[in-house]
Amino acid sequence: MTKPLRVAVAGLGTVGAGVLKLLGVHGDLIASRSGRPVMVSAVSARDRAKKRPVDLSGLRWFDDPLAMAADPDVDVVLELIGGSDGVAKALTETAIAKGKHVITANKALMAVHGAALARAAESAKVALAYEAAVAGGIPVIKSLREGLAANDISRVYGILNGTCNHILTSMRETRRDFAEVLREAQDLGYAESDPSFDVDGVDTAHKLAILTALAFGCEVDFKNVYIEGIRQVSALDIAYADELGYRIKLLGIASCTEAGIEQRVHPCMVPEGTPIAHVDGVFNAVVAEGDFVGSVLAEGRGAGAEPTASAVVADLIDIARGLRLPVFAVPAKDLRRPAAVPVERHHGCHYIRLMVVDRPGVIADVAAALRDCEISVEALLQHGRSPGEAVPVVITTHETTGAAMDEALRRIGEFKTVLEPPRRIRIEAL
Amino acid sequence: MTKPLRVAVAGLGTVGAGVLKLLGVHGDLIASRSGRPVMVSAVSARDRAKKRPVDLSGLRWFDDPLAMAADPDVDVVLELIGGSDGVAKALTETAIAKGKHVITANKALMAVHGAALARAAESAKVALAYEAAVAGGIPVIKSLREGLAANDISRVYGILNGTCNHILTSMRETRRDFAEVLREAQDLGYAESDPSFDVDGVDTAHKLAILTALAFGCEVDFKNVYIEGIRQVSALDIAYADELGYRIKLLGIASCTEAGIEQRVHPCMVPEGTPIAHVDGVFNAVVAEGDFVGSVLAEGRGAGAEPTASAVVADLIDIARGLRLPVFAVPAKDLRRPAAVPVERHHGCHYIRLMVVDRPGVIADVAAALRDCEISVEALLQHGRSPGEAVPVVITTHETTGAAMDEALRRIGEFKTVLEPPRRIRIEAL
Repeated sequence: MTKPLRVAVAGLGTVGAGVLKLLGVHGDLIASRSGRPVMVSAVSARDRAKKRPVDLSGLRWFDDPLAMAADPDVDVVLELIGGSDGVAKALTETAIAKGKHVITANKALMAVHGAALARAAESAKVALAYEAAVAGGIPVIKSLREGLAANDISRVYGILNGTCNHILTSMRETRRDFAEVLREAQDLGYAESDPSFDVDGVDTAHKLAILTALAFGCEVDFKNVYIEGIRQVSALDIAYADELGYRIKLLGIASCTEAGIEQRVHPCMVPEGTPIAHVDGVFNAVVAEGDFVGSVLAEGRGAGAEPTASAVVADLIDIARGLRLPVFAVPAKDLRRPAAVPVERHHGCHYIRLMVVDRPGVIADVAAALRDCEISVEALLQHGRSPGEAVPVVITTHETTGAAMDEALRRIGEFKTVLEPPRRIRIEAL
Repeated sequence: MTKPLRVAVAGLGTVGAGVLKLLGVHGDLIASRSGRPVMVSAVSARDRAKKRPVDLSGLRWFDDPLAMAADPDVDVVLELIGGSDGVAKALTETAIAKGKHVITANKALMAVHGAALARAAESAKVALAYEAAVAGGIPVIKSLREGLAANDISRVYGILNGTCNHILTSMRETRRDFAEVLREAQDLGYAESDPSFDVDGVDTAHKLAILTALAFGCEVDFKNVYIEGIRQVSALDIAYADELGYRIKLLGIASCTEAGIEQRVHPCMVPEGTPIAHVDGVFNAVVAEGDFVGSVLAEGRGAGAEPTASAVVADLIDIARGLRLPVFAVPAKDLRRPAAVPVERHHGCHYIRLMVVDRPGVIADVAAALRDCEISVEALLQHGRSPGEAVPVVITTHETTGAAMDEALRRIGEFKTVLEPPRRIRIEAL
């Protein structure tokens, strides 16, 4: 056996504790698969006195993670702190500058600073690995970077946030509305007390931006991701989706088109016959479409201490084995900077739900507004009758642009007979 | 750019032609991801005069693939001939002995001779890569060997044969029997004119034996795989499966138990709520269960020229990038040789279907036979009545051993009131 790989762990929250546990439990297995022992040589966290579920005795403690990153007895730094800037960024930069390999579970950091960090790591000839940043334990980064490397990828999409998927699944199963299900998810520990990062789609967007860069060989471009969360999805929309043969999922979708790269995060109606429609609860899934391989789906647990630790340690074993690949599959200096296609230019079908006064002529007005925006109706549903009262009307459309639909919904929303802002959910052709 | 990687292709059937097409179409992409050009330097096949859908001009032709494997201007040999012995084996051995890397799509070869070939390749310090041998384009070998390397895997299972899955899916959708659907699949090109390798489960068993070795770090042990194909599955059983909340799938299942390794290929009833139940048509899927990652599923096209080429060229890019890992994740000399647990000792639930004379006392006799073998009934279905005539009776059982069920079915089969050999399909807890 060659000399051990010496690992410094920065951040001892859920993920950090999971990684220490895994390295403790599977030391022999990891050594056998790595061809050398992997040992934790130092740890750092904010509060040394805090009670933790792992034994830190025998490990060197650093109050300052940057000092740890500069320590000569460290080969690899695990950045498990989180946040796109601040200590996490400084730590990663310092470690790279000191010639250490870095493994991060930090999607925000990679989404916002991925391109610069990749250039720095490749100049310094160190690895910057981030399997744990997207879809937890599912080896989706490795699959895109290596397993599907022979393909021109045209689209990659997925369910990337377990909290949102749990909420949408639970809403469907129990026919309850968002607020109530969110509260329950918070009580069960499936949602944070401030859930906005998850339910507003930001977490999904961070992960999508990373997948986009890897799939299409371009620089990470988080700021051009269109983001819409799940707060507006109602029990009524979920019931209509069932009736129409769809499931509602929060997807992150990146497409490579002739006009450039489209990156969108929003609730989608997906046909119930597609594999991704059946990915329920806290599970994540990613689908990549390659010109030779066709469509490949990977599904598993997208979060939690143990699945995330599985991904972090897989990166560690790769590094111990000597694997050193460009961070985003092609050298960072060769990454493209294609145009970003805004969501207004996306072509797709739509589901619209209106609350209207049940009175003759209302549908005709709505239909005329759609016609004037050159939008073609695929189906229209108005169940039951309540003359003079509010009733839901659901319309699905053929393909149109986002801009045309925005304009149509603006006009329709101004009708006096339309009592609430129209709801729109994009229908995704998968 | 460093010097090109020179590739020799042996076998120009469907897969060989697909690989040449891919290398032609994506030369630049592959060079960019490999860090060096990948060029085809020589080809070999049985019949030089045969018409092929690819242009071979400019490529050196070898009538003798062994001479090609020994050629000094070749770095990597692609073995795309097939068959567990004969030319494929000789070619692989020669290439390894001559210090060439080998990529094979040959599951039979790896299943039967994998352990010896791995030792030879590792002694010669060359790569022996076989992503295309299991589940076509799905990067399942890489996922098990690298992506999930931090886990102790307890079970790996999958739908590994697209022909069988297509037939079972079509039987369910059209309520037709095996023979008729097989004939149609043959007409459509989804099944071979001699379909036995597929429908009798041998192909699945080859692939399973490879996954077993990789997942559990043991030598490939094909001869201890229990194999039962799908010829006995009837439209009636599929209808009952639906009623009971199951789908019937041909699975390959490998489990690591305290007693040793269990490897089974047979039709299974899988609960319709599980992801694998929804893998339909020619698609393949593999599930691995790791102690940290939990359950991870990968799904995609398991066969065909293009998906298989995607896997072969992914291996080629790995080799061009300098990736060199032990063939079965740990060094071949360290692979374990655990005991093989026979199917008779498998604990599981069963579905049994009998055709019995509709007469009082028949069910009591059957129930007594089960009781005498210490098998506990979970449910019993006898729909309709046809006094004195043949009616189906379906029984599902609680967990028992394969041996106990064999004995019960032997006794039940001897009853005069039981008109056909009892049908048994194992119910899999997933």
